[in-house]
Amino acid sequence: MAFLYILDDWPPEEWLRAMRHLDTSLDLRVWPDVGRVKDIEFALVWKPPAGALLEMPNLKAIFSLGAGVDHIFRVGDLPEGVPVVRVVDANLTMRMSEYVMMHVLWHHRRQRIYDHFQSERKWRGLSQAGANETRVGIMGMGELGSDAARKLMMMGFKVAGWSQSRKHMDGIDSFQGRGELKAFLNRTDILVCLLPLTPDTRGILNAFVFKELAKDGPGDGPVVINAGRGELQVEEDIVAALDGGDLYAATLDVFEEEPLPPHSPLWTHPRVTVTPHNSAVSDPRAINAYILKQIKRHRTGEALENIANPANGY
Amino acid sequence: MAFLYILDDWPPEEWLRAMRHLDTSLDLRVWPDVGRVKDIEFALVWKPPAGALLEMPNLKAIFSLGAGVDHIFRVGDLPEGVPVVRVVDANLTMRMSEYVMMHVLWHHRRQRIYDHFQSERKWRGLSQAGANETRVGIMGMGELGSDAARKLMMMGFKVAGWSQSRKHMDGIDSFQGRGELKAFLNRTDILVCLLPLTPDTRGILNAFVFKELAKDGPGDGPVVINAGRGELQVEEDIVAALDGGDLYAATLDVFEEEPLPPHSPLWTHPRVTVTPHNSAVSDPRAINAYILKQIKRHRTGEALENIANPANGY
Repeated sequence: MAFLYILDDWPPEEWLRAMRHLDTSLDLRVWPDVGRVKDIEFALVWKPPAGALLEMPNLKAIFSLGAGVDHIFRVGDLPEGVPVVRVVDANLTMRMSEYVMMHVLWHHRRQRIYDHFQSERKWRGLSQAGANETRVGIMGMGELGSDAARKLMMMGFKVAGWSQSRKHMDGIDSFQGRGELKAFLNRTDILVCLLPLTPDTRGILNAFVFKELAKDGPGDGPVVINAGRGELQVEEDIVAALDGGDLYAATLDVFEEEPLPPHSPLWTHPRVTVTPHNSAVSDPRAINAYILKQIKRHRTGEALENIANPANGY
Repeated sequence: MAFLYILDDWPPEEWLRAMRHLDTSLDLRVWPDVGRVKDIEFALVWKPPAGALLEMPNLKAIFSLGAGVDHIFRVGDLPEGVPVVRVVDANLTMRMSEYVMMHVLWHHRRQRIYDHFQSERKWRGLSQAGANETRVGIMGMGELGSDAARKLMMMGFKVAGWSQSRKHMDGIDSFQGRGELKAFLNRTDILVCLLPLTPDTRGILNAFVFKELAKDGPGDGPVVINAGRGELQVEEDIVAALDGGDLYAATLDVFEEEPLPPHSPLWTHPRVTVTPHNSAVSDPRAINAYILKQIKRHRTGEALENIANPANGY
């Protein structure tokens, strides 16, 4: 039995070192040096080359390096019956909530304006709503969205979530499906997107959504924060909404094309924060440990956890 | 019976409107239009003029407009036996924790560097510790410090508090008194100061403290965040520590002189964030409601809550 890493542009050394630290017995291989393909029983993959996973007859499970599995699901590209396992990792979740909390607070507290005041040596206070007056809306209430929601609520924010299925969390309003999207947006001052990328969600952050965000909030105006996937957003619509007034500001960690091309107007827009897909970097130690736990479950006949559903794409 | 506001440069209208909304029966007066001084039984004060409170023979209690009471305690300036009441208000506490959380995360997540990258259109990720690897130390574990500590812990940070008396909070290390200050600093990457200003704490954020902060943390270097009072810090020492390497960065909401004078080097230091004493702005509605509750307690013979102790100054 061998374990294969397909890492795209991640340097493999850190992953191998972390895994050997956890389990010295594993036969570790790194794409494209696969060796005998029949040996490969498990693979951890990030953006696998087209068809790569079809060549391994004894593959038992495919683990996704990130929280999303959109980089794996491609039509006809996966061996039949081999489960794709999402990484559900407390460390990854913690990091994503750090990012969401920081940027929600940054907008809520009007810090962009204070930074500008500082650059002018201007001492001036602004009116300031409490968190209990600011409505945060989270699109995508999986592991990441639920954790961020709970933490934002604990800071005092009014929090709602929008998801495919109804969620039941104390103190958090749940909106479900396309039918309730408008109502969700109408009560949202700061929109946080943590959706999985699927055919249904591609391009969902568009002019319609920005137009429906609450315009009567206590802050400077509607804000969007996208830390999901770049293909969830229509960047042309974001720029138009910023300039037309449907959006006041945006914090974007992901982009239609990554790295974000130098000519993108997002780099220099005065009310856009660009971060280089750093919201929740996978920690090799934590992810390898999660995978070992799943492999152990598989070997002892227990079911794998967090298997993605090819029908809905996450 | 009359209620007196001494508001320094706060506009009185909002305070009067908020109070009338809560209780139409009160006889409200605003310094210096006190009317008959014998009528005044209660006063809400911010930086009262020297001796002002000595002139009111029937004063029952003095309420502080902010969380700190240092602006009231001056030798020989208070009528004997009249309690000075600290404002303990959930709204104020929530706002302070917003500020602390935002700026701790900002440093922890290295956002200053990412902002710089954005200005250069540079797409570059940096190594990033998790909150569970970053040690936050809070000086002052009263209402504000304890709330911030609890919320930072919930985000995953390693949190310790330093205070005059030992605190017992699950998951938070407690350091007590001058004897344990060095040990507290040695384990702290991000130092948050929420101390009351007293003769004991004046100037406590000085070269000694910065020198003792942990130099082996996972981030860019030691950080100080002061949202207490400006007189707690020695600004000359902050600048020297930033330039000498004992501090990597600072977020300052309060200053030795406010407004911060235009010639201060803090305005333009590349690793200093200056905010205009906006960390936790008092909400007139919430503070008036708190005062009415205390007046009611007093009238029904119950003890006032949160009475400051003149012996230790908070």
